[in-house]
Amino acid sequence: MKENIFTYLKLFNLISGLKEPYIAAKLLIEKQKTLSVAESCTGGLISSLMTDISGSSAYTHSNFVTYANETKEKYLHVSSQTLSQYGAVSVQTAGEMVEGLIETTGCDYALATTGIAGPTGGTDEKPVGLVYIGVGTKDEMHVHKYNVNPKLPRVIIKYLFAKQAIKLLIDVLKEKEN
Amino acid sequence: MKENIFTYLKLFNLISGLKEPYIAAKLLIEKQKTLSVAESCTGGLISSLMTDISGSSAYTHSNFVTYANETKEKYLHVSSQTLSQYGAVSVQTAGEMVEGLIETTGCDYALATTGIAGPTGGTDEKPVGLVYIGVGTKDEMHVHKYNVNPKLPRVIIKYLFAKQAIKLLIDVLKEKEN
Repeated sequence: MKENIFTYLKLFNLISGLKEPYIAAKLLIEKQKTLSVAESCTGGLISSLMTDISGSSAYTHSNFVTYANETKEKYLHVSSQTLSQYGAVSVQTAGEMVEGLIETTGCDYALATTGIAGPTGGTDEKPVGLVYIGVGTKDEMHVHKYNVNPKLPRVIIKYLFAKQAIKLLIDVLKEKEN
Repeated sequence: MKENIFTYLKLFNLISGLKEPYIAAKLLIEKQKTLSVAESCTGGLISSLMTDISGSSAYTHSNFVTYANETKEKYLHVSSQTLSQYGAVSVQTAGEMVEGLIETTGCDYALATTGIAGPTGGTDEKPVGLVYIGVGTKDEMHVHKYNVNPKLPRVIIKYLFAKQAIKLLIDVLKEKEN
């Protein structure tokens, strides 16, 4: 159960290097846009990082951690057919999480993660370290597949997933004129 | 915007010392109980800490970050009268967040936070560093008032709030026979 000191040193380095939330926050505040997040494997970490910034209430209204399939259906309106046909960790589920977020919260930007943080739960087809990250607005949506080293500790995998998700959000925020 | 190295050293010490999520997780898994979390000021940190543990899907189904008042009403059924009469940071709001969580998610244990992580947003009556933490089951509920040094950095205040919340959850889990 107990993480070793090496894990925490790595985590420390990661946290201290995490500038992405500040960049994303600055863009959201400048553009006066809101963000909602739906997290599966990252478990609330993206939400926590995005609210480490004073003034984050300008863009944060409601975020969700939807770990169980039923909660993806109930709160984000992911279809049960999508979940049974493609699985929770899939491009289709990530996409529907983004769509559901925009629909239920009315946010301007939506960010969703579904993946396998490990150390258990991986398969040959869907290994530990795999995540699908969905980012979108009411007009467009992208789902990205991203992999990290499955041998990394769970907390580090969560951080790498969260960092990549916020990076993708920044890309979309920068692309948009307003 | 940039946090200094001192902040991160403190954060590192806090993270590496945070055994509470593992203790709470062990109790939840042993008792086969579920937990839902609704966070305002902690912004997803409790949820993230409680999902740092492999096997957390046994007790985590859905968690919420309800930053805006409207989202406390919409997803947790906190009454608008409570919010206008007592404010979002109040014993009443924390209590209704717990009740709403149990009602909407059907979880066995509910944990809710509402407070002021700062550095702005504090008043004489409700200073930075104040948090109300609600913890309950369908049969009983407690709301605790907790204060930390308002001069601490925001990220540290969030961690102290989260740590205290999980400690209170552990107390309630230990009290219950099953």
